[in-house]
Amino acid sequence: MSYITVTYRVFDQKHDLHKKAESIALGLTIGSWTHLPALEKKQLQAHKGEVVEVVEEESSEQTTRYFKDSRTTGRIKIAYPLANFSNDLPAILTTVFGKLSLDGEIKLIDIGFPPELEQSFPGPVFGIDGVRELVRVYDRPLVMSIFKGMIGKGTQEFSQQLSDQLLGGVDLVKDDEILFENPLSPFHQRVEIGSKIIRQIHEETGEKKLYAVNLTGRTFELKEKAKQAVENGATALLFNVFAYGLDVLQALAEDAEIHVPIMAHPAVSGAYTASPFHGISNRVLLGKLLRMAGADLVLFPSPYGSVALDKSETDAIAYALTEDRQLKKAFPVPSAGIHPGLTPKLIHDFGRDCVINAGGGIHGHPSGARSGAKAFRDAIDGVIHTSLANAAKESSELNAALELWGS
Amino acid sequence: MSYITVTYRVFDQKHDLHKKAESIALGLTIGSWTHLPALEKKQLQAHKGEVVEVVEEESSEQTTRYFKDSRTTGRIKIAYPLANFSNDLPAILTTVFGKLSLDGEIKLIDIGFPPELEQSFPGPVFGIDGVRELVRVYDRPLVMSIFKGMIGKGTQEFSQQLSDQLLGGVDLVKDDEILFENPLSPFHQRVEIGSKIIRQIHEETGEKKLYAVNLTGRTFELKEKAKQAVENGATALLFNVFAYGLDVLQALAEDAEIHVPIMAHPAVSGAYTASPFHGISNRVLLGKLLRMAGADLVLFPSPYGSVALDKSETDAIAYALTEDRQLKKAFPVPSAGIHPGLTPKLIHDFGRDCVINAGGGIHGHPSGARSGAKAFRDAIDGVIHTSLANAAKESSELNAALELWGS
Repeated sequence: MSYITVTYRVFDQKHDLHKKAESIALGLTIGSWTHLPALEKKQLQAHKGEVVEVVEEESSEQTTRYFKDSRTTGRIKIAYPLANFSNDLPAILTTVFGKLSLDGEIKLIDIGFPPELEQSFPGPVFGIDGVRELVRVYDRPLVMSIFKGMIGKGTQEFSQQLSDQLLGGVDLVKDDEILFENPLSPFHQRVEIGSKIIRQIHEETGEKKLYAVNLTGRTFELKEKAKQAVENGATALLFNVFAYGLDVLQALAEDAEIHVPIMAHPAVSGAYTASPFHGISNRVLLGKLLRMAGADLVLFPSPYGSVALDKSETDAIAYALTEDRQLKKAFPVPSAGIHPGLTPKLIHDFGRDCVINAGGGIHGHPSGARSGAKAFRDAIDGVIHTSLANAAKESSELNAALELWGS
Repeated sequence: MSYITVTYRVFDQKHDLHKKAESIALGLTIGSWTHLPALEKKQLQAHKGEVVEVVEEESSEQTTRYFKDSRTTGRIKIAYPLANFSNDLPAILTTVFGKLSLDGEIKLIDIGFPPELEQSFPGPVFGIDGVRELVRVYDRPLVMSIFKGMIGKGTQEFSQQLSDQLLGGVDLVKDDEILFENPLSPFHQRVEIGSKIIRQIHEETGEKKLYAVNLTGRTFELKEKAKQAVENGATALLFNVFAYGLDVLQALAEDAEIHVPIMAHPAVSGAYTASPFHGISNRVLLGKLLRMAGADLVLFPSPYGSVALDKSETDAIAYALTEDRQLKKAFPVPSAGIHPGLTPKLIHDFGRDCVINAGGGIHGHPSGARSGAKAFRDAIDGVIHTSLANAAKESSELNAALELWGS
């Protein structure tokens, strides 16, 4: 028999972790066991959840402060038979954290997928290697930038910003996640202009770039919209997966006619991940599940900006996106408040296989976005080949950035 | 100009709620304002978020315990121009709680939808009145029950349980939310058997019943699956909306060929709603948004069972589902650990326009599910016309239930 194993952190009021674990294992599968007739036990054995591990943990200082009453903190690992659910993420989520998400303080911290389950998911279609092939950059972190303040602006502004960012040397540009269908810069025009500018730059410089257009609108229209976009030259998609559903991302990734990298944005994910006592861990939600569902690139707050995650969280996300598995690896994209002075830390934390993503850290450069982009590229080359300080001596753009934002 | 207004509870480290509110209003719309040239201000005025209200609140005892540092608790209300997003829930969620959900301790506690936005949503197609028409019950709470332990069981067990529950007098029966497509009781067979049994009972007793089959599987196959089910006689659908997405529920509700009531299950919703410092309130998620998206019935934990919500939370959900608005009203369905002894409290709290939903409280009756269902019907009639105690004198089934579970 095959199982999916799920680890929860619990804060037990009744100080009996084993009993709690048993009640989850039975309550979320066959309901009851002890008093069943032997025949029924035989019939239901294949569907019974099993307690795999119960580990009492020391209560953190925060836990002790938070609860008025005394709690036993612990890690509980439950195995759910694959026979109980269909091979789709909504069924898995409902099984392992449906009712249970409402049952007091409990956080889903890890999921172990057996190979036969994992292989029924697409994983990244491009993955790190595939995205590198598209931009033909193999030996350094990629650089990405975000449009600035496009709400209320038109296609001329869009063209200008896109050219500036790309010509400065970024590899990918993405829409702001809050830019939706709008009359000033309609989706299909962004796709067409984006495709044209990328083609021009390729002809002029030989470099290959990607622009991720924000795929938005009603769920059941997304596939058609994405297909048309790809037909019209779209090179990548940005997708607010947590405002839709993981299974929608999976369906986009699986569609052979939507053959461009998909970039998953973490918008709304904080509603699930941020509490230590409720919800789902970043490792699972932004890491394992996004990779299984087919994100090629995954954005998340770096440990260093104004909106930040703990380094333990970003490490866990990046590990889940890149550990050796059957599925291709997805690009970690640490984001939010990134400036060139942070490149040594980011490369130290995430290695070369990451995308360094900046908005204000490119547009806010004293000499404009094109210089802002160049400053990042020079910073990365410096960190990889000599040092940031050395690179700054030879790059006035990097030097200006480090003076403004620090190093 | 029209706005959507969103209220957040914040716990501000910098003790400057007005500044925090301003940064949200600008950060989630046009980015910056003060230093823009006059012409650009004119261009962007229609897209600028506005601070509507900033109210400092007393920090709860829990808040004071939770934070190590000192915080200013407050309610902040921001107005976002409708011009900034398309009329769909993913765009709205991404705008008002996308990036912001990741920004430290902040909980989205309310959303005000202007009429012109609300009317672009379907709301419940049947609503309370429509569901009452279907079961022809106008003057009392409806009674619903849930299959018990169907995982690993087959269609014979299914038929038996369905008949027992319905003949005892429940109005609606629903699948367990963790019952997915499976070889022992396939979806299409449950639909066919359910339809047949409901037709038989109608012919024999004149009563009209509903059975909500669990609509599961891949997102892009749900509409077709639901349409076929309705064609084959399905009378209602159960849907784990938070394992999919609110917009998927909306699309099901909007489809004229899926003309049966939709019952929204709260599975996975605790991952968003349970923390006081993060996520989205029950009022918004299970109340306002489910009603707008088109749920006819909404399940949520009652204040009284083993899995329970605070009464203030269930009051807020029920109010949001039933307050006078342009949209039809949705049935509140307080659930989890309900037995006949709780009917006085439930009717006191939720009035006659609710559905009383029981699993163990029906199947666990000493004389079986049929008696368990009758005990509920007798309890409700008692509470409405005389009293629970009086009704128990005349109903051995109710009397047995009260002896077992208390009153």
